[in-house]
Amino acid sequence: MTSLASAITGRWVQTRGPLFTDMYELAMAQVYVTQGISERAAQFDHFFRSTPDYGTHQAGYCVSAGLEPFMGWLGGLRIDDSHIEALAAMTSPTGTPVFGTEFLDWLAAPDRFEGIEVRAIAEGRVVHPHIPIVTVTGPLAVCQLLETSLLNHFNYPTLIATKAARVVRSARGGRVLEFGMRRGPATGVNEGIRGALIGGCVSTSNVEAAIALGRQPIGTHAHSLVQAYMAIGDGELGAFRAMAQAAPDECILLVDTVDTLASGVPNAITVFDELRADGHEPVGVRLDSGDLAYLAVQTAKLLDAAGYPGVSIVLSSDLDELNIWQILTQIADEAEREGMDPNPIRQRLVYGVGTRLITSHGSGALNGVYKLVGIEDEHGEWTPAIKISEDPGKIPLPGRKAVWRLYDHRDVAIVDLIGLSDEEPLPLDENVVHHPNHSGVNQIIRRADIARVEPLLVTPESGASIDELAARCATDLDHLDPGVRRLVNPHRYHVSITDELHKLRADLVTRAK
Amino acid sequence: MTSLASAITGRWVQTRGPLFTDMYELAMAQVYVTQGISERAAQFDHFFRSTPDYGTHQAGYCVSAGLEPFMGWLGGLRIDDSHIEALAAMTSPTGTPVFGTEFLDWLAAPDRFEGIEVRAIAEGRVVHPHIPIVTVTGPLAVCQLLETSLLNHFNYPTLIATKAARVVRSARGGRVLEFGMRRGPATGVNEGIRGALIGGCVSTSNVEAAIALGRQPIGTHAHSLVQAYMAIGDGELGAFRAMAQAAPDECILLVDTVDTLASGVPNAITVFDELRADGHEPVGVRLDSGDLAYLAVQTAKLLDAAGYPGVSIVLSSDLDELNIWQILTQIADEAEREGMDPNPIRQRLVYGVGTRLITSHGSGALNGVYKLVGIEDEHGEWTPAIKISEDPGKIPLPGRKAVWRLYDHRDVAIVDLIGLSDEEPLPLDENVVHHPNHSGVNQIIRRADIARVEPLLVTPESGASIDELAARCATDLDHLDPGVRRLVNPHRYHVSITDELHKLRADLVTRAK
Repeated sequence: MTSLASAITGRWVQTRGPLFTDMYELAMAQVYVTQGISERAAQFDHFFRSTPDYGTHQAGYCVSAGLEPFMGWLGGLRIDDSHIEALAAMTSPTGTPVFGTEFLDWLAAPDRFEGIEVRAIAEGRVVHPHIPIVTVTGPLAVCQLLETSLLNHFNYPTLIATKAARVVRSARGGRVLEFGMRRGPATGVNEGIRGALIGGCVSTSNVEAAIALGRQPIGTHAHSLVQAYMAIGDGELGAFRAMAQAAPDECILLVDTVDTLASGVPNAITVFDELRADGHEPVGVRLDSGDLAYLAVQTAKLLDAAGYPGVSIVLSSDLDELNIWQILTQIADEAEREGMDPNPIRQRLVYGVGTRLITSHGSGALNGVYKLVGIEDEHGEWTPAIKISEDPGKIPLPGRKAVWRLYDHRDVAIVDLIGLSDEEPLPLDENVVHHPNHSGVNQIIRRADIARVEPLLVTPESGASIDELAARCATDLDHLDPGVRRLVNPHRYHVSITDELHKLRADLVTRAK
Repeated sequence: MTSLASAITGRWVQTRGPLFTDMYELAMAQVYVTQGISERAAQFDHFFRSTPDYGTHQAGYCVSAGLEPFMGWLGGLRIDDSHIEALAAMTSPTGTPVFGTEFLDWLAAPDRFEGIEVRAIAEGRVVHPHIPIVTVTGPLAVCQLLETSLLNHFNYPTLIATKAARVVRSARGGRVLEFGMRRGPATGVNEGIRGALIGGCVSTSNVEAAIALGRQPIGTHAHSLVQAYMAIGDGELGAFRAMAQAAPDECILLVDTVDTLASGVPNAITVFDELRADGHEPVGVRLDSGDLAYLAVQTAKLLDAAGYPGVSIVLSSDLDELNIWQILTQIADEAEREGMDPNPIRQRLVYGVGTRLITSHGSGALNGVYKLVGIEDEHGEWTPAIKISEDPGKIPLPGRKAVWRLYDHRDVAIVDLIGLSDEEPLPLDENVVHHPNHSGVNQIIRRADIARVEPLLVTPESGASIDELAARCATDLDHLDPGVRRLVNPHRYHVSITDELHKLRADLVTRAK
């Protein structure tokens, strides 16, 4: 697929090149270069501050996405003459160059982006607020340059992987398809779709993205097919027959263009009978408007009566995790009223989830940040860095750190513990740990309660397939307490910091003030 | 800039190639090809159903964006062997090929995407619900294939151009900078930024996008610069001095890392004095946290007293149109309390607007659609197409249409009138026109009240600069009634359909039922 993935068409080419970053990163790098501190070793941490709040519902966890594309971007970073020329042409209000030759020569060095050490939580893992998801260590100026692009690579895909995991869990085993490219954020839908597949969607409607990600794209047909046949005189039945003839082994018919129960489903059954007589099995019908729960039950009833209990019912139309939950709840009620078993109905449902997934409806951005946590001083000594903010909740955790996920004897993940990288996670029988940003809130973790300690920050490995990433996500979700997975008002997962880290931060804040 | 715009790095290459479309478009095209109707002339219209509703506030108009990138994509469409191979490899559940050779041969024809006629409302224009923004005429199967990509090209950029226009208007002359790439939708931020500039942002922080769009990117510095100097012992003042030395003619200092009024602004003034003594003029300070209105007034007071009345005050931190409105309102109150004139304070403000602009906070997707409105029948006769939806508001307007913008004697745009393309817009002294989707709602337009009739659908012209598009947008906004521009609960702009079009649709609905 390399040739496809690198085929570029159109004049407005979208890339993430080496200058896909904020101007101020370059301005700061120039300061560090001209002041002679650009090569000081520094560490920056990427983390997010809180899980998405969708208004009426809230995420109890996030699913990390973006690591492999980021590492690919980082590995391919090359500054060429065109970049240097573009920067050299920028001028201040008085006409002087923004970037001097000292900085541009530094930037143009062929090995400029080598020697950066990245440690990260593996892509697809469940992650929580405050824990470092990526740590970047290297020369101060280079680490600074990476900030904006790193955040761009992680924030949106993680947001969508998180939403997808919620939608997929709400479907309780029903398959979820990603259908969002028409209203999603332009070329950004590609990264959103990758996140959606990591979060558990089985495929996408986007042909190009599916091919690039090694999935087969999924689609049915649009109302326009039926409209076209109505306009030329063959009507809905003619449209369905044409569709079945063109794709007899994967026939899914959209039944709501005229009237779902009076026209669409009966016409579909007629065509399914013709298909079966011809030796083919129909695949499904799609409902795209109206009362989806009611129509799904009535459609199932008609299909069952006609001898098609195995045909899928694809639902679409502004779906999200709450709508799917509501549909499944209503189906149970509708089925009871009809004297039907709701379980086979649920099992044949497939969900096409578009706009609300690809835009993370209700919470359109993740608040991931990238903060300096340590720097080498003039004597080569490592010095933790601190920022005193007007908001005490925004003081980042200083120094080089480790993150351990603690599992209890049920193998449920109960705490993510952040400590200094040279610490033992649980040195005592009873360990005092602290809330990451509310001072005075602490708890005790008894070593005897912990069955397993898993270090989360590792050296990134490339080459995992989307299936592997999705499997990691599913495994981590299974290890969460059901209360944390709850769609509305979830239990807050515990993220704590060790006593050592807590003391270091307190000391630094006191010194800075 | 060609070499930069075409420089591709990273393994996950983002493109909009010929397969950047939904699977079902290909499935339908195959139906049309195998059924022998692929070459029938057809017309599809792109329009949106409603302006964004952000929850507590609502848009009274949209700003169209995406046309030039779409035309560039369309003009560059080429199907190559890799695309055909990828499609040929797709199989149905029973293992049969999804796409047959008849369709793939059709698709691979070198002139496949020629002969498509596009008419559109010029990019940057103010647009309203229901009016056709793009009409696509050509062979049925080809027009169908374009659907998803066309919508992807228009929906998100139009959403962001609209939000940007609102933010820019709320700033009442203060300059607005686009700062959203770190939390925006991955590579989609590029198209979002283009929309933001069309809507009136003066520039962006994104270096690559700014270069591609012919603007100089804008940036200040981050908290990390101050943190780094604090960690190595030189403190905030050391950081400011370093910044000033590296960029003496464009020095903007971020003053909230330690304490805005007690440390940041006084240190900035110290450095500004040093700059001035050296023959340079400082440019600004930036406030990124706390009570921005209060801090802006206090900062202005300190800067004025120190002899820097011309220095800009850049505000950032979760800004949007409501926050800016609130800040300006509060500044008037704060200034009064201090005995200061608020006007010079307002005039020196610059707004860095990030997440809430690039994600269109409160309304993350525009509901643009692409609907079949007419098709040639077997006798070569043009036949309007109709869709009977369960929701009467969703019945599209059939047939080939024109859109006229009617201006009154104040040169205010008062109605967008949709009619059939062979109609005169106002044939009578008094013309009955109808609501586009609520039957029975009509009004009379007197020809004597209309000073100017402007046809909106034209053949797209390429090559307009972003400045020209932004100027179009500003001009159109100036021609709106202030009530339509209102941030909250705006007047509804009148969109009407002619009596002829109204009758055609009613006839078609009756016939279809």
